[in-house]
Amino acid sequence: MTKDLYLGIDTGGTAVKYEIADIDGLTLGGGEVPTDPSNATRTLQALAADAAPILGGAGWPRLAAVGLACAGIVNPVTGWLGRSPNLPGWENRDLGGAVTAAFGSLPVALANDVNGALYGEYRYGAGRGCRNVVMIALGTGVGGAVIVHGELLVGVHSGAGEIGHMVLQDDGPLCTCGSRGCLEAWAGSTGLLRAVRRLLADGVASPSLAELARRRGAALNTRDLSELAEAGDAVTRGVFAEAGRRLGQAVANLVNVLDPDRIIIGGGVALAGDLILGPCRERAVPLILATEARSLPIVPAELGPRAAAVGAASLAREKARGGR
Amino acid sequence: MTKDLYLGIDTGGTAVKYEIADIDGLTLGGGEVPTDPSNATRTLQALAADAAPILGGAGWPRLAAVGLACAGIVNPVTGWLGRSPNLPGWENRDLGGAVTAAFGSLPVALANDVNGALYGEYRYGAGRGCRNVVMIALGTGVGGAVIVHGELLVGVHSGAGEIGHMVLQDDGPLCTCGSRGCLEAWAGSTGLLRAVRRLLADGVASPSLAELARRRGAALNTRDLSELAEAGDAVTRGVFAEAGRRLGQAVANLVNVLDPDRIIIGGGVALAGDLILGPCRERAVPLILATEARSLPIVPAELGPRAAAVGAASLAREKARGGR
Repeated sequence: MTKDLYLGIDTGGTAVKYEIADIDGLTLGGGEVPTDPSNATRTLQALAADAAPILGGAGWPRLAAVGLACAGIVNPVTGWLGRSPNLPGWENRDLGGAVTAAFGSLPVALANDVNGALYGEYRYGAGRGCRNVVMIALGTGVGGAVIVHGELLVGVHSGAGEIGHMVLQDDGPLCTCGSRGCLEAWAGSTGLLRAVRRLLADGVASPSLAELARRRGAALNTRDLSELAEAGDAVTRGVFAEAGRRLGQAVANLVNVLDPDRIIIGGGVALAGDLILGPCRERAVPLILATEARSLPIVPAELGPRAAAVGAASLAREKARGGR
Repeated sequence: MTKDLYLGIDTGGTAVKYEIADIDGLTLGGGEVPTDPSNATRTLQALAADAAPILGGAGWPRLAAVGLACAGIVNPVTGWLGRSPNLPGWENRDLGGAVTAAFGSLPVALANDVNGALYGEYRYGAGRGCRNVVMIALGTGVGGAVIVHGELLVGVHSGAGEIGHMVLQDDGPLCTCGSRGCLEAWAGSTGLLRAVRRLLADGVASPSLAELARRRGAALNTRDLSELAEAGDAVTRGVFAEAGRRLGQAVANLVNVLDPDRIIIGGGVALAGDLILGPCRERAVPLILATEARSLPIVPAELGPRAAAVGAASLAREKARGGR
């Protein structure tokens, strides 16, 4: 039987998503299974069972290669997963080996999760046709990924793309990493929610924001906030604008170093759209030195939560073809 | 006659340096001629006459290719020189055409000056053996250049490598570019001297710094200051340390994005050595997220003012070989 299917996996802290693509990158289907945070092989075996109907039954006769995107420090050459805060039972071990244990001896492509997502966007989403593209993923924290000359930049110690920890102000708010003034401390949902709670504590929140916070309590999230901002609440709009301006400073710094085709903004916080992208563009453009580069598109991601699994399937295909 | 010589040219605002290398990169000689800031072709013709003894006389029968590094926005594909503040009579024209007018129809490689210097260091200096390397050049202003996967990163609009305009503090000192808090505003010689003059104006300079400034007047330069700092003057050491810490913040930001093999610090201000590199390393290391990347070498450039001409000769050789 022809080996013509490529499995892309995106492992998150609670669920593992997958996409199965053919040689042309067309998705034949996908799904998700719960993550067993203590055991990678067991999780991947459950995923294999779930995907079996598409993969063609036991032994996966049509499966050509597997790609796996995983949060944490992933070395795509050795297959080693280093630090991975959301997957304590997976870290500091041979992730490539876990894939092989579940799927047998096949070409395996590994990537950090944001690298996987950017690769998906690059091949099938907001980065199509680019050769140099940067992604900033605004989630709980802020991740990033860089493609240069058509190739993912992994870095010498698998440490590239940590855009969330670019220090934008050395007396800025404290970041989870221990530094002050990282982009993440403003533009990740944790930082954004903290800014809101500070306004509440200082008694300078608007009545509608105070009411929302009271009603939602600990469940308050950036989607609640963006709805309130969309409805016109100036204080909440100001919180997104401040995050957007800091994002803009980071974008300009990246453009001055890399001068890419475009910048893609993804992650849940980016669903706030122009509430954050408007102030981002406004702040970024005048800080970009090369006049021609000021027109670079700063665009939202297109593939949403599927991006990393789609990208992992693409990376699997590249790997099977003897590329990287 | 075998075409076996490669001419590398580095055009500065006052002088144009050149190096002539053989196929193995060995320098056979070099020199410099004054820059005619109003006319590129005339300057290059004077250079050709000066280099004639090594190049083997009229018609340059042994000359295989020419590389030219030039300050400003250089498009290596079209040969176009855009903005170039120090060469007003050269900018916004066909630099490749000027080389051809002086040397005839030969392969021509063009690069921005810091890209040329980094390429020289990469092939023959502080970057030998690296595949991913960043250079920060601390001159009057602050320039930069990036090599990724063994290739110079020029950028989509020839705007990559403008590391001097990374914004490190949005309420920082005013930069020549009009923004606030750029690396250049602290770590270029203009920024450093301005910091000293502010200390003098505020009456908080040490007596020996005040005496030095009085004696040197408008001629005061960073070499004077580093001598005073080496001699132990705490206030002057503090000025270098502040520049070094800001350089460290920029280095960490670059490492978190690019995770290179090493960072090379060049330019005249870098001659202050550990006065600036010590505080730079101290500030950078804890800001780098990937633990393994914290050991990356932050090293001084090795080729000094010859770097860009050496790099340009290397780029000429690559071009003649049919590479980039």
